[in-house]
Amino acid sequence: MLRPRERETGRDRDRIVNLSDGVFAIAITLLVLDIRVPNIPEDLVSTELPGELLSLWPRYLGYFLSFICISVFWTIHHSIFRPIRAYDRNLLYLNFLFLMLVAFVPFPTALLGKYGDHQLSVAVYAATLAVGRLLLTAIQWYSTRDERLLDEPQDPATVRFFLIRGVAIPAIFLLSIAISFFSVSAAIWTWFAMIAVDALVIHRRFS
Amino acid sequence: MLRPRERETGRDRDRIVNLSDGVFAIAITLLVLDIRVPNIPEDLVSTELPGELLSLWPRYLGYFLSFICISVFWTIHHSIFRPIRAYDRNLLYLNFLFLMLVAFVPFPTALLGKYGDHQLSVAVYAATLAVGRLLLTAIQWYSTRDERLLDEPQDPATVRFFLIRGVAIPAIFLLSIAISFFSVSAAIWTWFAMIAVDALVIHRRFS
Amino acid sequence: MLRPRERETGRDRDRIVNLSDGVFAIAITLLVLDIRVPNIPEDLVSTELPGELLSLWPRYLGYFLSFICISVFWTIHHSIFRPIRAYDRNLLYLNFLFLMLVAFVPFPTALLGKYGDHQLSVAVYAATLAVGRLLLTAIQWYSTRDERLLDEPQDPATVRFFLIRGVAIPAIFLLSIAISFFSVSAAIWTWFAMIAVDALVIHRRFS
Amino acid sequence: MLRPRERETGRDRDRIVNLSDGVFAIAITLLVLDIRVPNIPEDLVSTELPGELLSLWPRYLGYFLSFICISVFWTIHHSIFRPIRAYDRNLLYLNFLFLMLVAFVPFPTALLGKYGDHQLSVAVYAATLAVGRLLLTAIQWYSTRDERLLDEPQDPATVRFFLIRGVAIPAIFLLSIAISFFSVSAAIWTWFAMIAVDALVIHRRFS
Repeated sequence: MLRPRERETGRDRDRIVNLSDGVFAIAITLLVLDIRVPNIPEDLVSTELPGELLSLWPRYLGYFLSFICISVFWTIHHSIFRPIRAYDRNLLYLNFLFLMLVAFVPFPTALLGKYGDHQLSVAVYAATLAVGRLLLTAIQWYSTRDERLLDEPQDPATVRFFLIRGVAIPAIFLLSIAISFFSVSAAIWTWFAMIAVDALVIHRRFS
Repeated sequence: MLRPRERETGRDRDRIVNLSDGVFAIAITLLVLDIRVPNIPEDLVSTELPGELLSLWPRYLGYFLSFICISVFWTIHHSIFRPIRAYDRNLLYLNFLFLMLVAFVPFPTALLGKYGDHQLSVAVYAATLAVGRLLLTAIQWYSTRDERLLDEPQDPATVRFFLIRGVAIPAIFLLSIAISFFSVSAAIWTWFAMIAVDALVIHRRFS
Repeated sequence: MLRPRERETGRDRDRIVNLSDGVFAIAITLLVLDIRVPNIPEDLVSTELPGELLSLWPRYLGYFLSFICISVFWTIHHSIFRPIRAYDRNLLYLNFLFLMLVAFVPFPTALLGKYGDHQLSVAVYAATLAVGRLLLTAIQWYSTRDERLLDEPQDPATVRFFLIRGVAIPAIFLLSIAISFFSVSAAIWTWFAMIAVDALVIHRRFS
Repeated sequence: MLRPRERETGRDRDRIVNLSDGVFAIAITLLVLDIRVPNIPEDLVSTELPGELLSLWPRYLGYFLSFICISVFWTIHHSIFRPIRAYDRNLLYLNFLFLMLVAFVPFPTALLGKYGDHQLSVAVYAATLAVGRLLLTAIQWYSTRDERLLDEPQDPATVRFFLIRGVAIPAIFLLSIAISFFSVSAAIWTWFAMIAVDALVIHRRFS
């Protein structure tokens, strides 16, 4: 029902951004629902509560990891949409596909929190984030490809840098699936290493 | 408590749109809560987790389907409200009724995910979306009927096209209920076919 | 940390309204989580699903009723905040207290959905909504009492009308608690009658 | 992907504030999910429901306490971000860390609601809120340290007052952990006393 021949402007862009922010905000806040208070018989609480709370560590880790990943997604989404002044139906569809992945993250996070020592959970988690990140790269590629969607021309070197980054990160996620067949914990460490290196690269490039 | 004799403007319209976007964002994000991590005894996880995750496919399908349907609802809602510059109490009531249906979607989705091979689940799902879509058509009909609610006059041919579409889609949903008495899966395929044909028609008309 | 001597303006007002809208949107969308798909053994689904879905009617009713009540609260909140251009700490505190009640509504709704034929559930529900409505009246009273918080002076007759309405509705909710000692269903009917009469009075007054 | 050399302005600031408001709104609204309707056999409801509802008092208390704490966090966040006209990557990271704590609050609240008479629950709750409050203080310190992030210069005495407050409150939360080893309920009372004294100090200072 969008009128695609006329590019939309102003408050239209704002509404797509608002909906996206709503999905981001809810997805990161729902993550906590997966950390459940353990059930312990009344007379054993004092002795068992500390151990039970410690044994939830895979869920804290999953919360922490998914919170970071969705935050990074938001930051990238934010910088992609900043120069966008108009959008068409394709961009709308890509954005909905991307949001479908973002809203799905609580499920692989819960899987990782419960069966984090199994290869399949790690693979499902990595695959979800790889696809999500690829969709974000597709949104970036689509929006910068067409000057009409942008407020101002983008620096080509910066656009190229972000497209390379936008392909490298999902590639590493997919690589971690291969790693997970040999060592599940090595695969998980790959993610944290990737997040740290990525932050460092960004920091280096812009200061 | 609205002052109906004076049509509201500007930020009033924004607030009704913001509330609606909030409901949309939450409804699509809550859908994932229905995909629950299976409970498997520790020693059987390696062998049973793949099968258990695969057996959740009706829930992934429900997630996918409802995500698309609510996204399409949002897109239509978005294009209805774009030219609206004012609203009155009737529009507010219609919008709340519509949001009541949108916020309800997670329930028939869960029903479909659990008992998707039963006729009743399919009928409840189709009926919910038919009523939701009809309310959206009612909002469109009401807002375009009265020039005073709009920023600028609408093209009558486009308005007619969208009203016809807005009646055809719920009619197909209701038809799928009839189909479901003969074949449950045929009814579900009807929905996907309808979504595809609808996207195609929209694409054809505007390019 | 607000600077109370300087009245806040513009985007400050917007942020308090945005937070409130977020709470409204989430509260009405969470209501659906209380309608749970029944657990039925696989071989009995065909025969028992219709009956089980019908037996959920108190939950549908609770969903419907709370959705209406929160929608009415939103409409009133909306019209109270429309002329507000500034706020001080007292208004902020009153608004948070009110939101605490709005966010609480899913609990009495769940209680009503499960034990709706018991006097206590009806009393808890009525008391929650009476207190919420009174807080809304307090917000209105506070904001219209002080011209400095408003964009433009309000019509005194209209202000008086809304204050009377804002005291009459919680009074009827409290009265329904007394009624519930004699008949639980009469108390519930009182609410629906009140909602209908209220809508009629508003309609009469403004047309 | 932010361009750190150019400070961001206008709608960028708005988007970070909107995301934060979304997380605040969802976190306070999810708190109610922890107050669950008790399961009572049908024939015992009349006699047992009152007692069961009363026995939920630690959960009502947790709801009330966490609602207040998150509201106070919002109020402070709100006044920190009001004069901010730009932000850089550090501020973004600090804000995400802070939101991670805000979104986490429902877990220690549930712990307190279930095992509120145990020292560990009280310590986990106090630690979560102390860390959250310290992150908020870090955001304030960072944003006022650098004039370039602000719309207008801040009064140094007021900045100092809020930094002292921003260190004193988490210190009291940490102190309450020490108190909890001697008396769990004394620790909980410390929080309420702190909230009341804090509100009083703020009121005194600004009137």
